[in-house]
Amino acid sequence: MVYKLVLVRHGESTWNQENRFTGWTDVDLSQKGVLEAHDGGKRLREAGFTFDIAYTSVLKRAIRTLWIMLDELNLCYIPVEKNWRLNERMYGALQGLNKSDTAAKYGENQVLIWRRAYDIPPPALEESDDRFPGKDARYKDLSPSDLPKTECLKDTVDRFLPLWDETISKTIKSGKKVLIAAHGNSIRALIKYLDNVSDEKIVSMEIPTGIPLVYELDENLKPIKSYFLADNDELLKAQQAVANQGKAK
Amino acid sequence: MVYKLVLVRHGESTWNQENRFTGWTDVDLSQKGVLEAHDGGKRLREAGFTFDIAYTSVLKRAIRTLWIMLDELNLCYIPVEKNWRLNERMYGALQGLNKSDTAAKYGENQVLIWRRAYDIPPPALEESDDRFPGKDARYKDLSPSDLPKTECLKDTVDRFLPLWDETISKTIKSGKKVLIAAHGNSIRALIKYLDNVSDEKIVSMEIPTGIPLVYELDENLKPIKSYFLADNDELLKAQQAVANQGKAK
Repeated sequence: MVYKLVLVRHGESTWNQENRFTGWTDVDLSQKGVLEAHDGGKRLREAGFTFDIAYTSVLKRAIRTLWIMLDELNLCYIPVEKNWRLNERMYGALQGLNKSDTAAKYGENQVLIWRRAYDIPPPALEESDDRFPGKDARYKDLSPSDLPKTECLKDTVDRFLPLWDETISKTIKSGKKVLIAAHGNSIRALIKYLDNVSDEKIVSMEIPTGIPLVYELDENLKPIKSYFLADNDELLKAQQAVANQGKAK
Repeated sequence: MVYKLVLVRHGESTWNQENRFTGWTDVDLSQKGVLEAHDGGKRLREAGFTFDIAYTSVLKRAIRTLWIMLDELNLCYIPVEKNWRLNERMYGALQGLNKSDTAAKYGENQVLIWRRAYDIPPPALEESDDRFPGKDARYKDLSPSDLPKTECLKDTVDRFLPLWDETISKTIKSGKKVLIAAHGNSIRALIKYLDNVSDEKIVSMEIPTGIPLVYELDENLKPIKSYFLADNDELLKAQQAVANQGKAK
């Protein structure tokens, strides 16, 4: 038995354009991001993919990416589970700040550490901060200990994995075809787990936006192979675009 | 304790425009229908409504209406349950036929009986017919006895009520604020049940598209009052538009 699992990173958001740290801020797709989502859905349709269920975060840039893709696949009717454990990495007190301003204030090197160290989180939010997730109705059913004030990628991996272990992996093993629309760092978390990627390597892995990543998994959900639904030129271009987006200008 | 429940009938579909019997055919919203959905969402937002969970059918005209309304309410993240029991009445062998052609073939009076008699279904589909729901992947997990070949409104009521009894009513009693985006006849089914409307009266009740219908329910889910989020002029106009839509031209 070979299972297929498809991951997609949401298209460009309005804050990517504005070069701001986003994290759990609920910004929408940009017009380019909307086009990327349509493109991702078309790639799946043209390659003959279908799905029984989809998982996404509780952030609208991932949800809208999924909705657009389901529309392209004519699968609006499949169940969609939205879960905070698929959210982007929580960026702490950097959320909302301009990346260039932040680099000017703390130094490029410090910002690079926060962005790319596996286990060093950015400064934490205070609970009194309006950006603290405890102030957002969508997280009202979470236990206080689950509400992050900041996260390094390691934290994102740790809070994502229970969703994989308790829910998604069981759904796949039940024979259902699964689509996941999520964020750069929640997708890194899953890739790290599936492919056993080292802490050092995972932080610099660039996930292109809107290009479906297909995993073929054996009966124990170990990867047999994985590939993007794009030719090499498209893929390099998309990865380069994402890498450039991350640079402090 | 007063519970609030909101029902919305999807906006105009492309087949409304073409004057065809739709039923379980998965046609999309027309441009006018998209605008109606935005309008419905804005009415709820401006009246200060919020929701914890939404229910809809597995037909895209209702799902898209819901997506658009959630977008207007900035509630894309709430759970959405899609269930075939909220589908439109299944119109049997009439599905896809032009209403005028059908009236010419069977007589206006016979068509009126199929459209408006509470317990007389239109001719049934054969299981070999491509329109039979057993041929549609979205219904693959239904038991064969649940797959309709045709329905009168009584049948729609009968297959809707288990979803109310086993799921939606319990969700409301748990204190969650519920939004239902559905179809003319699945909404009639719920109104008939809640308000104990007679078989004769329910068939001629016109549900305007895109205008939220608010129910205030007591602790036993008996209606205290119900009202549309529209002034009387808007409401009469919308109901007249829906009534005219139904007429064989």
